[in-house]
Amino acid sequence: MKKIVVIGGGTGTFTVLSGLRQYPFELSAIVSTADDGGSTGILRDELGVLPPGDIRQALVALAADSTVLRDLLNYRFTDGTLKGHNFGNLLLSALEKVTGSFDKGVLEASRILAVKGRVIPVTTDLTHLRAEMTNGKVIHGEHKIEEYVWSEASNVKRLWLEPACSLHPDAQQAIRQADLIVIAPGSVFTSLIPNLLVKGMSEALQKSRAKVVYVVNLMTEKGQTGSYFVQDFVDLIEEYMGGRRVDYVLYNTRLPDQQLLDRYKKEMERIPVRFDKTRKARSMPYRMIGLNLLARQLSGQRNAADPLMGQRTLIRHNPARLADVLYSLLFVKDAEKYLR
Amino acid sequence: MKKIVVIGGGTGTFTVLSGLRQYPFELSAIVSTADDGGSTGILRDELGVLPPGDIRQALVALAADSTVLRDLLNYRFTDGTLKGHNFGNLLLSALEKVTGSFDKGVLEASRILAVKGRVIPVTTDLTHLRAEMTNGKVIHGEHKIEEYVWSEASNVKRLWLEPACSLHPDAQQAIRQADLIVIAPGSVFTSLIPNLLVKGMSEALQKSRAKVVYVVNLMTEKGQTGSYFVQDFVDLIEEYMGGRRVDYVLYNTRLPDQQLLDRYKKEMERIPVRFDKTRKARSMPYRMIGLNLLARQLSGQRNAADPLMGQRTLIRHNPARLADVLYSLLFVKDAEKYLR
Repeated sequence: MKKIVVIGGGTGTFTVLSGLRQYPFELSAIVSTADDGGSTGILRDELGVLPPGDIRQALVALAADSTVLRDLLNYRFTDGTLKGHNFGNLLLSALEKVTGSFDKGVLEASRILAVKGRVIPVTTDLTHLRAEMTNGKVIHGEHKIEEYVWSEASNVKRLWLEPACSLHPDAQQAIRQADLIVIAPGSVFTSLIPNLLVKGMSEALQKSRAKVVYVVNLMTEKGQTGSYFVQDFVDLIEEYMGGRRVDYVLYNTRLPDQQLLDRYKKEMERIPVRFDKTRKARSMPYRMIGLNLLARQLSGQRNAADPLMGQRTLIRHNPARLADVLYSLLFVKDAEKYLR
Repeated sequence: MKKIVVIGGGTGTFTVLSGLRQYPFELSAIVSTADDGGSTGILRDELGVLPPGDIRQALVALAADSTVLRDLLNYRFTDGTLKGHNFGNLLLSALEKVTGSFDKGVLEASRILAVKGRVIPVTTDLTHLRAEMTNGKVIHGEHKIEEYVWSEASNVKRLWLEPACSLHPDAQQAIRQADLIVIAPGSVFTSLIPNLLVKGMSEALQKSRAKVVYVVNLMTEKGQTGSYFVQDFVDLIEEYMGGRRVDYVLYNTRLPDQQLLDRYKKEMERIPVRFDKTRKARSMPYRMIGLNLLARQLSGQRNAADPLMGQRTLIRHNPARLADVLYSLLFVKDAEKYLR
């Protein structure tokens, strides 16, 4: 069975995994542990546990096909002292306490939830994201960085983790043995790059014989990647990959409905990520694969089983289409030529 | 397969179920929902859910044989806003919210935990325990009643549920189809009798062709049953059974170690429940079965997998011995004569 490693965190990773789980792949999700906002942040502060939020989303994507189980993991208490706490986060925190380590806790959660594949925290060292901004200021913590760039006070110049932390040995092994590595869409500075900052990650990527596919975001994010083209995303990611290049870049060519675009622009100052046709490809001309990757527009009806509903992301990738393309890249010779 | 119904709540029920689950019985646990103390009480107040505490203990007893799973369900958060909350209670509360009913939540929990048998809340109507004391005062709520009798201000004269509530149809069916009904040991006024107060329970017991076995507590409880003999326990239970008699009374004849007895006496004013030899049997002379039912004394070492550890109950029933005796009563002709 072909081995696929998905690197990321958040809803973009959820989407990629949801699609891939339908195929007979051996899946590993390597997930960021730099999150410190919301329920996750409170659990970090109060219980001293590792941040469960991104792990939880990956577990939900790969968990047994039960609507109730997914609803349960995504359930957020709405009243009393538990208000705002996500049940899946509480599960992971309690399992960390009971088993004595975050790592074992994630393994037990995977067992209880009959997860297909493996969810691996990128590191089990407790660490925090730091950002030096273009205005010289240093911001501490993933959540604060998101707030700061959102306020457009300044953009990120440099990111690092403090204290330095090491790649999970199982993540290292998964990357070494992978046939395909997918860098999932997601908040670049706060969900993707934190994975690449972990000590040992760039070495592992360089040593791996796997093709690396980067799935570019559909929409820009205010502050973080406000005016980025597809190529800018790739340049940014490669800057943190320590020499390893991306083999294939998957980007979307289909514009979402104008109504939705207007809403994104108005409410969140987000615009579609476009391919800049005026720029020459730096190298590897076939690696840029532009396709319609858009999910059909959501009806707006609440579906409790879908953790993306009620979140910011209405414009999103089509999980089945993504999985199809990744499948082709693995099994069809010169697929990139036909896919373009 | 023989059908056994266990009626109760709390650690006594846990013990009985733990023993019975090793046998090929079809098990149903009918569990009190009048609890309103501790984590359970907070969840009741803040989230408006039904009390999960007793249900949780029954689920743990019947859950798949996984130490981690049991530890998880019994895990109590020790810090921050979650302090004091039991994870199993949070699971049941979240499942009640996600599925829309306590009943469905318990079913889903049973599925997730691969529970052997069925755990049935005695009622799914939200209700509260009330007690009229011998001094005329009326006390509201299970937890308050426990506190009040503990302070020995007065003892319970009469108990009822408010508002009146109906027996769960599945509990009714289980009782009708049962071969043996076990009334588990436990706090008589706050864990056992609340089950018997539910509308429809005494009718169901009267209609059932099953033998009813009452497993009498090992130790008295201050305030509640401070100076009770075995016979007093039986009289009290039968008073609330609406005409149905207990067929067999299982009581313990072996005294715990003196050291443990001293500790119980000093710390909790609890003494062993004895059989009063001066009293004549009111009827059915064979029904009184006195045996060594005591678990071997606990080493005092903490075993995280055992939810009874760290609780008040150090002197407890031997689950395997209880199960053996119940098995004999079902399968051995005139077993009561040999067992005595």
